[in-house]
Amino acid sequence: MRTASIVASILDDLGFQLEMGRQVMASDYFMGKPNQEETAAHYQWALENGAKKEYIEAFTDGYTGIVATMDTKKDGPVIAFRVDMDALPIHESEADSHFPQKEGFRSAVPNTMHACGHDAHTTIGLGLASLIAENKDSLKGKIKLIFQPAEEGTRGARSMAEAGVVDDVDYLIASHVGTGVPDGHFVASKNGFLATSKLDVTFKGVSSHAGGNPEEGKNALLAAASAALNIYAIPRHSEGATRINVGELHAGSGRNIIADKALLKIETRGETTKINEYVKAQAEAVIAGSAQMYGVEYEIQTVGEAISAHGTKELASVLHGCAQEASYIKESILEDNSPAGSEDATFFMERVQQNGGQATYCIFGTELAAGHHNEKFDINEGTMMNAVQLLFESIKKLN
Amino acid sequence: MRTASIVASILDDLGFQLEMGRQVMASDYFMGKPNQEETAAHYQWALENGAKKEYIEAFTDGYTGIVATMDTKKDGPVIAFRVDMDALPIHESEADSHFPQKEGFRSAVPNTMHACGHDAHTTIGLGLASLIAENKDSLKGKIKLIFQPAEEGTRGARSMAEAGVVDDVDYLIASHVGTGVPDGHFVASKNGFLATSKLDVTFKGVSSHAGGNPEEGKNALLAAASAALNIYAIPRHSEGATRINVGELHAGSGRNIIADKALLKIETRGETTKINEYVKAQAEAVIAGSAQMYGVEYEIQTVGEAISAHGTKELASVLHGCAQEASYIKESILEDNSPAGSEDATFFMERVQQNGGQATYCIFGTELAAGHHNEKFDINEGTMMNAVQLLFESIKKLN
Amino acid sequence: MRTASIVASILDDLGFQLEMGRQVMASDYFMGKPNQEETAAHYQWALENGAKKEYIEAFTDGYTGIVATMDTKKDGPVIAFRVDMDALPIHESEADSHFPQKEGFRSAVPNTMHACGHDAHTTIGLGLASLIAENKDSLKGKIKLIFQPAEEGTRGARSMAEAGVVDDVDYLIASHVGTGVPDGHFVASKNGFLATSKLDVTFKGVSSHAGGNPEEGKNALLAAASAALNIYAIPRHSEGATRINVGELHAGSGRNIIADKALLKIETRGETTKINEYVKAQAEAVIAGSAQMYGVEYEIQTVGEAISAHGTKELASVLHGCAQEASYIKESILEDNSPAGSEDATFFMERVQQNGGQATYCIFGTELAAGHHNEKFDINEGTMMNAVQLLFESIKKLN
Amino acid sequence: MRTASIVASILDDLGFQLEMGRQVMASDYFMGKPNQEETAAHYQWALENGAKKEYIEAFTDGYTGIVATMDTKKDGPVIAFRVDMDALPIHESEADSHFPQKEGFRSAVPNTMHACGHDAHTTIGLGLASLIAENKDSLKGKIKLIFQPAEEGTRGARSMAEAGVVDDVDYLIASHVGTGVPDGHFVASKNGFLATSKLDVTFKGVSSHAGGNPEEGKNALLAAASAALNIYAIPRHSEGATRINVGELHAGSGRNIIADKALLKIETRGETTKINEYVKAQAEAVIAGSAQMYGVEYEIQTVGEAISAHGTKELASVLHGCAQEASYIKESILEDNSPAGSEDATFFMERVQQNGGQATYCIFGTELAAGHHNEKFDINEGTMMNAVQLLFESIKKLN
Repeated sequence: MRTASIVASILDDLGFQLEMGRQVMASDYFMGKPNQEETAAHYQWALENGAKKEYIEAFTDGYTGIVATMDTKKDGPVIAFRVDMDALPIHESEADSHFPQKEGFRSAVPNTMHACGHDAHTTIGLGLASLIAENKDSLKGKIKLIFQPAEEGTRGARSMAEAGVVDDVDYLIASHVGTGVPDGHFVASKNGFLATSKLDVTFKGVSSHAGGNPEEGKNALLAAASAALNIYAIPRHSEGATRINVGELHAGSGRNIIADKALLKIETRGETTKINEYVKAQAEAVIAGSAQMYGVEYEIQTVGEAISAHGTKELASVLHGCAQEASYIKESILEDNSPAGSEDATFFMERVQQNGGQATYCIFGTELAAGHHNEKFDINEGTMMNAVQLLFESIKKLN
Repeated sequence: MRTASIVASILDDLGFQLEMGRQVMASDYFMGKPNQEETAAHYQWALENGAKKEYIEAFTDGYTGIVATMDTKKDGPVIAFRVDMDALPIHESEADSHFPQKEGFRSAVPNTMHACGHDAHTTIGLGLASLIAENKDSLKGKIKLIFQPAEEGTRGARSMAEAGVVDDVDYLIASHVGTGVPDGHFVASKNGFLATSKLDVTFKGVSSHAGGNPEEGKNALLAAASAALNIYAIPRHSEGATRINVGELHAGSGRNIIADKALLKIETRGETTKINEYVKAQAEAVIAGSAQMYGVEYEIQTVGEAISAHGTKELASVLHGCAQEASYIKESILEDNSPAGSEDATFFMERVQQNGGQATYCIFGTELAAGHHNEKFDINEGTMMNAVQLLFESIKKLN
Repeated sequence: MRTASIVASILDDLGFQLEMGRQVMASDYFMGKPNQEETAAHYQWALENGAKKEYIEAFTDGYTGIVATMDTKKDGPVIAFRVDMDALPIHESEADSHFPQKEGFRSAVPNTMHACGHDAHTTIGLGLASLIAENKDSLKGKIKLIFQPAEEGTRGARSMAEAGVVDDVDYLIASHVGTGVPDGHFVASKNGFLATSKLDVTFKGVSSHAGGNPEEGKNALLAAASAALNIYAIPRHSEGATRINVGELHAGSGRNIIADKALLKIETRGETTKINEYVKAQAEAVIAGSAQMYGVEYEIQTVGEAISAHGTKELASVLHGCAQEASYIKESILEDNSPAGSEDATFFMERVQQNGGQATYCIFGTELAAGHHNEKFDINEGTMMNAVQLLFESIKKLN
Repeated sequence: MRTASIVASILDDLGFQLEMGRQVMASDYFMGKPNQEETAAHYQWALENGAKKEYIEAFTDGYTGIVATMDTKKDGPVIAFRVDMDALPIHESEADSHFPQKEGFRSAVPNTMHACGHDAHTTIGLGLASLIAENKDSLKGKIKLIFQPAEEGTRGARSMAEAGVVDDVDYLIASHVGTGVPDGHFVASKNGFLATSKLDVTFKGVSSHAGGNPEEGKNALLAAASAALNIYAIPRHSEGATRINVGELHAGSGRNIIADKALLKIETRGETTKINEYVKAQAEAVIAGSAQMYGVEYEIQTVGEAISAHGTKELASVLHGCAQEASYIKESILEDNSPAGSEDATFFMERVQQNGGQATYCIFGTELAAGHHNEKFDINEGTMMNAVQLLFESIKKLN
């Protein structure tokens, strides 16, 4: 909230028109939101730590999305940029595309990225905002900067897409730094994102003394164990890759008590949205069947979701062209279809494409390393400047 | 059917009044009957092999139960004897109490007991019938001989009990030879029979090519495997012993095809009828859950069932008294409560006791051995004569 | 330790000869001991909270057993009483025979029984010690009071038995209050304790990213789930009751990571020691097989164990006789064989009986209720006085 | 054997030099051969049904492979053609690439393809042999026709490759008709075959009476069920597609007996040989673990195996060129990499390529339909003539 309020304040000063919080996030689709108490505590913390009071009111309840629009008042296309704020101080990212997570050295302690100062993506977004404001008179149409909160598990984009924030967009450009692309390289259309669903499953049975009255228990641990085993046994799909994982299972409260509670944390993936839907449906059937086997109740909560998407070639070509002309880009790749993790920017992309617009997801390569912070920070600054520059060039081309 | 027709013919000649076939067997409760074709083929075979044509008509469709009543026309109790014909030539018994079965040397080839000639139980029944007929004038009340077919898997008694054949009975005596009781010994009340259910479960899924379209299959093999595993995991019961077995699992028709059919043969047991009902209900839940897991259909067929029962002490004491007076009985035991297999005579016992009558299940010890047939046969003949004598004595005592 | 040091101090003052700590506990058999750090911290706490400094040194490292012997110097039998200190402030008991545990209202917060003041069993032990000391001159032989620590999970007795503390004992009387026996009633020989083993199982696999490199993981969660399911499927035993429970399963550390660690808390039980050994061996095979399936390592730690035992009828009759003569005992039962939980006093009983001595486990009924502490405390005091009196009477009878 | 002897007779007449039976098949690698009795019976049948006596002796024991070499005695390359006889009358093919199998309308009755007359592949092979013999004088080098038996489950090729029959080969062309390629179309290099292993697994436990002595059994059914479930749970592989199927599970011999025998028919597949090896190794670990769980013995028999392979582009281009020039080919495709079933011709291809030679697998499209036999037969004949012609053209190009 603190960061969101500061970002909002800067954008306001630059002359952008702001829509914030619940205006730009559909609550039905904001999955896995922290509960009220956590949110309230965080609000208090933000207030005491430099949050901008006149803006933070929009973000209470944790709806921290911002859409900043620069209307040139001249005829022209609507161009949108998606900026994710998912590496903000609140909590280090658990996105698959996040390197520390992927390699397992992500900090286990929440809020430990504070010291890092500015986050690359937000910085790029604000840098781009500055350039747009400066050059406002020479531009046409509208430019929208979408600051999306999605701290973990592909949760924020769908909510904003459902709120309609990209419904008038002609060109959508989502961007990301790093993800293994070498420093100075550029990918104009990164595809290969797997559709995914993140499910939290709870089984609720009946406890009883395992020695005294075993027949009176409804064993949630066994339901969970059986579910886990059979979920992994979900068949492959002939049309593309699938993934399935039960990452956590916690059940029971005492050695000699038949377990009355169990929790499973599940992740499904599919090469296409349809394939992921198939895996998810199978997992749901297994869970329902396991519950029936042991006479226990169950609840499935979808706490994260992303679809697959494919960039629009035309738009990718425009970016590719800009990159080829830019001296600061060593090499530009039009399209990269190798398998990637999951990304919820795909919800924006699909929405724009469904409305006849164009969308792409591009990558600015960088040497994102852990450890040598100062040294690296220089490199990152370079990458960020390049990204801001290239994205601004694309606006000019598309104008 | 051949044997039944011969038995009927003899009883008719002795002056017993006969009720046969569907008159004495409720079809709703005759479980696991061979199908129509098998029955028709057997009927043909029986006709060609010495069956009594005037009686066999009553037994078409395999309903081969006979109730033979000797009505003395004098006031007095109704005394019934249950004679099981389960060791008839048709098929060697698979009852748990059957020694060759228990020890695993039961012949795998159907119909191979032909050569043995007379079966002990039927012989005892007919011997008792002769004594009753000879002594008819000195007896009172009615005497009923219930010849029950139950070739395998505890299937015949319930059907006859439901048809009401013991509803007028004051004293019911079921008897068995052998079952581990030493030669010359007698048990007046054998208890400890476990209630049991025999279930045939079929799963019906959808086959598909395992390489080409794995996602299109509905895997009956996995449903069956999961059911088997979870059925064994049904919890113990604090009120008494339980047993559960999946004796057979057959699934699938080709290595590279997702299996669309599976069959499970299951047996549940419980120290009491209630406990067995508990195990059965749990098994049914597991089966339903497994089917749901894999999106397959299922059918559960109960092909055999027996309840638990406890002999009436009063009646047991009468038999114990007769045995103690009989010179040919070396030792008589009033009551034996050690765990035994399952027996569907318990359906008769419960019915009689519910109507205020008395019932017991007694054992005539013998040296039932395999191998030395001739030698043994002498011993058996002795046992049979003793059994006939003792049962007849009990009629006199109860008269 | 604090309590142990106070108990030791009192017994010393009364003239008992003391053996303490590692003198009376064989370290090879002291299972599930808290680790060094916890023990050291507790030691510190005890020192600061009134522990008797001159005694506590014996109990460092958590070996808090005490054997107090009163040697009358006159010829006579060795009579021993086992006093468990398992309801001491350290941690509320999780023993099956502990009512709050059984009924599920046991406090989840450690150390919350402080307020209760003296614990019934220890109080009985000290009360008995006082009577013995007062009447020392009129007694013969030796009287041993065995204060056994066994805070949770049947852990302390075996260690003391293996140390030889009952090897010279002619009569061993273990006693317990409550366990469902009505107020004022007495059971001279409580049998039916199930042999039990408590196992902590850890699986150690290899984590990997479930989306990126699923084939590189060694899935500890699946090994644990498969183990749990197949452990419940361990067959029944024809010679007596069995129990098996996986009370807790905790596995994995992130939704999208293949779990590299899993923990199972298992409890096996058997009507006899042999049957429990069978169940335990089967469970161990299942665990080893599950680990092999998934290429993970495993470790099985036995953190608690108890055997079954049966009281000596002669000794029970002596106690029964005392109880029948005592006006404060409303009703005395010689022998109660109904199924009970597990108790490690059975290790003492077996050892004494193996050496030709006699042993029994007796119960003093009481109205052990939760909630109304003051009110109840009066009742308990009554029970405790009666227990002390009756146990002292038994010494006189056995002298 | 009958067909093999006739084929051998024809080739001999055409002047080919023959190597047959064990000369061209390494017995260590001839998996899943029918047993001796079946083979002997079939030998007898063949003799009585027109088999060529002077040739059949080579094929006793079921080793029915033939390598026919035409040595032009002039310098030149060794060109080999693999002709599979897997659709011979003996048994309709179960290969995945076989359309009736794939679509599920393959006859369940063995030997029912008799009526069809000639089989396409063998006919093509013999047609090609005729052309070679006729044009022998204008050809150079050696031409080898490899008639491979592989009635089911990818079993024959490896045995012939291991016997060294392609070790001198410079160009290897395997061909197939149909497999979904439209009539008149040609694929010069069909890739995408999945590596596969076919495993027969038997578990051997100990039977016991499920009611009387459940603890004495070693449950092979449960081991098999647990293996099946956990085999399906083998993780996906990030480097390519995997498939796994347990197509059949048969266990147990009686409802009330703990099953002492179980059989699983398993098939693994992988996009590359390495991936399939991974899946197979995982399956083996699961099987070993399941056996350990239940204390049963197990045996894994590999009854079929194929590797993945990729055609040599150079050789494919030659065939593509011939096809483009041929008026009877409507359209030629150089390379088709879409996923296919499995093929053991890949063993020949890998061997040739490892020795520096070139290999490809080509497809002649056809309208292989069921039902309208006469009509279709015309079309097939056309396809076969075209195939013979094109393959002969390729010899001329490669000469």
